[in-house]
Amino acid sequence: MAVYTEIGEDELASFLTAYDVGEALSVKGIAEGVENSNYLLHTRAGFFILTLYEKRVREEDLPFFLGLMNHLAGRGLTCPLAVAMRDGRTLGRIAGRPAALITFLDGVSVKRPTPGHCGEVGTALARFHEAGRDYGLSRANALSISGWRPLAQAAGERADDVREGLSRRLDEELSLLEGAWPSGLPEGVIHADLFPDNVFFIGGRLSGLIDFYFACNDALAYDLAICLNAWCFEADGSFNLTKGRAMIAGYERVRRLGADEAEALPILCRGAAMRFLLTRLVDWLNVPPGALVRPKDPLEYDRKLGFHRLARSAADYGLDR
Amino acid sequence: MAVYTEIGEDELASFLTAYDVGEALSVKGIAEGVENSNYLLHTRAGFFILTLYEKRVREEDLPFFLGLMNHLAGRGLTCPLAVAMRDGRTLGRIAGRPAALITFLDGVSVKRPTPGHCGEVGTALARFHEAGRDYGLSRANALSISGWRPLAQAAGERADDVREGLSRRLDEELSLLEGAWPSGLPEGVIHADLFPDNVFFIGGRLSGLIDFYFACNDALAYDLAICLNAWCFEADGSFNLTKGRAMIAGYERVRRLGADEAEALPILCRGAAMRFLLTRLVDWLNVPPGALVRPKDPLEYDRKLGFHRLARSAADYGLDR
Repeated sequence: MAVYTEIGEDELASFLTAYDVGEALSVKGIAEGVENSNYLLHTRAGFFILTLYEKRVREEDLPFFLGLMNHLAGRGLTCPLAVAMRDGRTLGRIAGRPAALITFLDGVSVKRPTPGHCGEVGTALARFHEAGRDYGLSRANALSISGWRPLAQAAGERADDVREGLSRRLDEELSLLEGAWPSGLPEGVIHADLFPDNVFFIGGRLSGLIDFYFACNDALAYDLAICLNAWCFEADGSFNLTKGRAMIAGYERVRRLGADEAEALPILCRGAAMRFLLTRLVDWLNVPPGALVRPKDPLEYDRKLGFHRLARSAADYGLDR
Repeated sequence: MAVYTEIGEDELASFLTAYDVGEALSVKGIAEGVENSNYLLHTRAGFFILTLYEKRVREEDLPFFLGLMNHLAGRGLTCPLAVAMRDGRTLGRIAGRPAALITFLDGVSVKRPTPGHCGEVGTALARFHEAGRDYGLSRANALSISGWRPLAQAAGERADDVREGLSRRLDEELSLLEGAWPSGLPEGVIHADLFPDNVFFIGGRLSGLIDFYFACNDALAYDLAICLNAWCFEADGSFNLTKGRAMIAGYERVRRLGADEAEALPILCRGAAMRFLLTRLVDWLNVPPGALVRPKDPLEYDRKLGFHRLARSAADYGLDR
């Protein structure tokens, strides 16, 4: 839950004069997103999300994110749009923060995904990859393998306060991943954070994707590995093969995985688990006193890593050939 | 900011079947209210607030609150309405909590009220008092003078950790208030919490009132005293007489204060400051570890009390006669 920055009525009124949406009829802080402050805004033009980008989002990346949403929507993907000001810009400023007005997107995220949901997410992910092919901007993945060792070093031996032996295990795991990490796989724009929070459904059908603030250029199959981690494990840490099958089959309805991608899937899943284990661990160890955000459990991904270590091939994730 | 109770998609769907509003198209936790969990809900019937009543609200009081909103709206006051289920009930249950579906009300609360805002609040408060006259239910004020000493005792000597000498000062102040508290003033339904958070404006005009969960039967002039405390002080603790004048004049445009109410105004203001000082103090001393809510500063009301101690008559608050 978020809302870090409060907005005064005068600065909101002044911010809105640059847009053609009318004055604020209602503005409510919403408890979504942990990186940014989000407000639900109502004007005579409709409902919008007003996002204030907090310090974890680099301002120079914002044109990539906002442009991507508008590019994907233009390719038929259902996602929020950055509303343009009268002068054509989409990035404004309020309360000392970069800010954008985003269209309100209907849909409800699921807390307990079914195989049906996983199949739809696979298909939507592949459509995202296809729609991103001709996007003009690019952004390096700051949280790919070269970014992991610095995170492990930031946690250091304090990792052992979270679970005994974790710091040594992270070190060994990183060495293995660095040695085995694939290169030359098909790349493109990936979402990189397509967790259940960021996928909307209406009446059991996928209705849209949100939160593009980790999007970047990287191996497309790595994005699928992130989704397999995020959607196909049960609460007890077990991998649900039916969900994995549904997700991979859903993906391949739109884009078939190459032999190189299929072969790399286990190591990509292992790396994806490592990425979320490390960022959650660092967040966990750095909760400021009085923080209003409860950090997510890093050990959830340590348990997932346990499954990946035993996987022998993409068949273990549900790829059927 | 709130959102204490999470709702699963299945229980929401099941909850909504009792209403005639259609399925959830969107549901977002909103960072408003500190007593309850609030969600903004979109269905084909429109936007609603779904409120889950947490343990600080007594379930047996809910019919009084929900009935009051619908009564006041029927008398022309702009406030949210409790939506009835197909069977006519307004109080449901979700996630183990009593819950109600409330209509969405446009409007923006002001953070820095002007004298113009204060005048409109005075008028709206008097209209509230008039509209409540023929409301059939009643509810005792659990936070009136007889409830204050137990709060002071709950804080005990820990009050001195917040400010030196506070516990002795509270005791003396309570003795004075208990000796001087007026009786026999005109009573009726009061809002009892009409702070800037709970008043909406659109384009500088008051557009509606919300949050009736402290409403009760008590002296009408005590409600005005609460508003003078909440709206007419500056951030540095000084009383803005221009705002006080505007508020009292706004009130008297609809309902003239009797001579007894005018005479009692200083002691009512002093008591109102004491009530918020005490509840904030107890909250301040009882923040659970890991709480997601930042308690409000009790000493703000200790400073206001300093002004009230020196007030000689209602003229010091802006009553002009």
